[in-house]
Amino acid sequence: MSLNLQLAQWCADRTLTFPDSAVRAAQTAITDVVGCLLGGRRDAAVVNASQAFPFEGGSASAVTHAAPIGATWAALINGCAAHALDFDDNFFPAVTHASASLVPALLALGEEIEATPADVVRAYIVGLEVEAQIGKQVNPSHYAAGWHATSTIGTIGVAAACAVLMQLDTDGIGQALSVATSLAGGSKCQFGSMVKPLHAGFAAMHGIMAARLAAAGITGAQDTLLGTWSFAELFAGQGQAGSPLPQLFPEVPLAIETYGLVAKLYPSCMSSHLGIDALLELRRRGGFEVARIERVDVHLPAFMVANLRYPCPQTPSEARFSMNYCAAVTLLEGAPQMAHFSAQALARQDIQHLMPRVHRHVRATTPEVAALPWGGDCMARITLDDERVLDTCWTYPKGCSRNPLTAEEQWRKFNDCATGNLDDQAIRPLFEALSGFSGLPTLSPITTRLRLQP
Amino acid sequence: MSLNLQLAQWCADRTLTFPDSAVRAAQTAITDVVGCLLGGRRDAAVVNASQAFPFEGGSASAVTHAAPIGATWAALINGCAAHALDFDDNFFPAVTHASASLVPALLALGEEIEATPADVVRAYIVGLEVEAQIGKQVNPSHYAAGWHATSTIGTIGVAAACAVLMQLDTDGIGQALSVATSLAGGSKCQFGSMVKPLHAGFAAMHGIMAARLAAAGITGAQDTLLGTWSFAELFAGQGQAGSPLPQLFPEVPLAIETYGLVAKLYPSCMSSHLGIDALLELRRRGGFEVARIERVDVHLPAFMVANLRYPCPQTPSEARFSMNYCAAVTLLEGAPQMAHFSAQALARQDIQHLMPRVHRHVRATTPEVAALPWGGDCMARITLDDERVLDTCWTYPKGCSRNPLTAEEQWRKFNDCATGNLDDQAIRPLFEALSGFSGLPTLSPITTRLRLQP
Repeated sequence: MSLNLQLAQWCADRTLTFPDSAVRAAQTAITDVVGCLLGGRRDAAVVNASQAFPFEGGSASAVTHAAPIGATWAALINGCAAHALDFDDNFFPAVTHASASLVPALLALGEEIEATPADVVRAYIVGLEVEAQIGKQVNPSHYAAGWHATSTIGTIGVAAACAVLMQLDTDGIGQALSVATSLAGGSKCQFGSMVKPLHAGFAAMHGIMAARLAAAGITGAQDTLLGTWSFAELFAGQGQAGSPLPQLFPEVPLAIETYGLVAKLYPSCMSSHLGIDALLELRRRGGFEVARIERVDVHLPAFMVANLRYPCPQTPSEARFSMNYCAAVTLLEGAPQMAHFSAQALARQDIQHLMPRVHRHVRATTPEVAALPWGGDCMARITLDDERVLDTCWTYPKGCSRNPLTAEEQWRKFNDCATGNLDDQAIRPLFEALSGFSGLPTLSPITTRLRLQP
Repeated sequence: MSLNLQLAQWCADRTLTFPDSAVRAAQTAITDVVGCLLGGRRDAAVVNASQAFPFEGGSASAVTHAAPIGATWAALINGCAAHALDFDDNFFPAVTHASASLVPALLALGEEIEATPADVVRAYIVGLEVEAQIGKQVNPSHYAAGWHATSTIGTIGVAAACAVLMQLDTDGIGQALSVATSLAGGSKCQFGSMVKPLHAGFAAMHGIMAARLAAAGITGAQDTLLGTWSFAELFAGQGQAGSPLPQLFPEVPLAIETYGLVAKLYPSCMSSHLGIDALLELRRRGGFEVARIERVDVHLPAFMVANLRYPCPQTPSEARFSMNYCAAVTLLEGAPQMAHFSAQALARQDIQHLMPRVHRHVRATTPEVAALPWGGDCMARITLDDERVLDTCWTYPKGCSRNPLTAEEQWRKFNDCATGNLDDQAIRPLFEALSGFSGLPTLSPITTRLRLQP
């Protein structure tokens, strides 16, 4: 059996019932990413993308438009908005920002075909698990080669989810997976540019396109994931035909339960988070003044050091990929928040003074720690001008299942994102509606709130 | 200077004047592919794709719709139609079916922005040359790895052409090239399926999207073609930063003049054409009866043998990728025509009898011949039941610049494609309008003829 067919059969099996804990985890992720996409609606990438095309009617909500537009276009724009602040969750089994493409695609398509929230949750879980299985076949070499998995694996996961939402059968889902393989692309060389968040939008748009083309009778090769000229070969140099197929739920637990999603509390590249966590811990312990800091050393896994490639960021977008900036903000202000990624904050004297004192280092660690979903831990050390040295090691990033966001933190993040992007009176009701998402009778209480308020 | 910037500067240089011979070659190619897309309008891939989306208005003509639709969608459908019969031209410097994505994209976008035919011709030549330069950087390893260059390099070439049609400046064209790199994808594992022609449609659609996103202010990395995590590295494992940049017209001649496009006279995979040419030559020489043929041996370059992977084709689509089928038709009927790729023809006793007698072989040849744009020559041998052996070697495929289609052949091909897909009275006038394409004041005499006749 091909990997395509195995995944399609699993996706199409409507006898599978997912545990309540998985449904709750999905609902929390959906709530989180809806906050992120409201927060991202004014980002330049989103505003510009919204002006690129003459959107001609349709019935899906986009955060840049008061009137509904076509589902593929709404998915493009909302996917970009969801990822624009780099505040959306990470899904480490696939190394994707999975929710940033899955949720916008499912909401847009769901709105157009009048799906229920419960159906959206089911499709979301299926898409996430497909991403986990493909990720296991091709990573770490896929991500290390330079592919932006959010865009590549994301497209295929979204296609599976959309095909499930459209209730296609095994053959239809298999065709959607095949078409999606032809639409996958996108390199990490776009990190720090407007195209990076667009990658999540492309994955969302292409996933819908693949599912719709399959539903309309388009048929493709049925061995596009493993084997000669397959995704695994072209995008990772591995995975020949005959490679062992994965085990899937219910034989093994769901990835959403074992790995979970890592919800961010800080709107910056995930690679900066262990460093921020460690510095927050030193700040909590106290006993020093920021003015007395002589140097800050942050030791991280090599790929995190590579991702944080702007020691002297010139734009808020670059600041999100700067350990120096995130460390300076953390020491001065505590946990970085949305307002810290502005031109105004970037120009602050105290931040500019502290940034050059931050030094990044590649950290060697134990195989056990390197095998964690996020690939390692962080050692942070502060040296004061009286020669005192404070240090700590941090292993579980805030937001992971061992160190989750509290209900209060979830709400504050949502509120922080929505403020200024949604009528103040509507923020709390929307958050509460999302908290009971899978029980809502229709999507409209959610989707109509995403439209630009006239 | 990055390859992105070099290409963008060249594309944006409106002081460049292309020679009349290049304009004529472009016009001939545009005429040819318009015929192909009319011929492809009833193909299942095209009909199915046209039903996949709720197209909501717009102002570009699609061959499946009586009313205009959005330019990106028209490009998707017309690109698929142009490539559906595998009858459209080949552009060997990039190993792309270049016109099948360039022409549908430029006609759709041009119709929407009211460009002139002369501007379309200029943009077409620019896009073609960009494909040639990128092709030189990444081939042959790119195509050999399994990428379908029509879709990958095609997307970037179409983006350049569309950005030129929109009269973007160097920076704008550079951004379009960057966005296009993120939209490039597609594997040769789709050969023989409906997704193969869709690849040309995806390239057409994505090229317009990239140009429009750039025009709307989207900015991306400016070293996406060569260097770390670039197109060359990810899609061909080569082309590091600092690789020598290509020379461009007017320093060197245009690829459209030196290599030219290979216009097909037979609606089957290009890899079958040298074999068909050689068998036609033996047929012309005569002196044998088909009924007396014991075996047919066709010796071809290895990649052609690999592409022709259906010794016993089950569908007309597979028959286009079958040397056995094409050889049988050629020996029985002469040059294969559109009517030969039907379920009815496939079922013919005489063809079925002859097919198993055809044997493909990998041919080793001289380095000079292997260096030809199409990668080799063909030796065909017929063995008769009286032990007579007839053979010939064929080097220049019908349709290449050394062996071009005559004016009469161009017209017969166009008429063959258009008959049944366009009002009979309109076929000759459309062909004549296309023959003077670059002098037409507007695109509408062409584009309105592509719409489905109500």
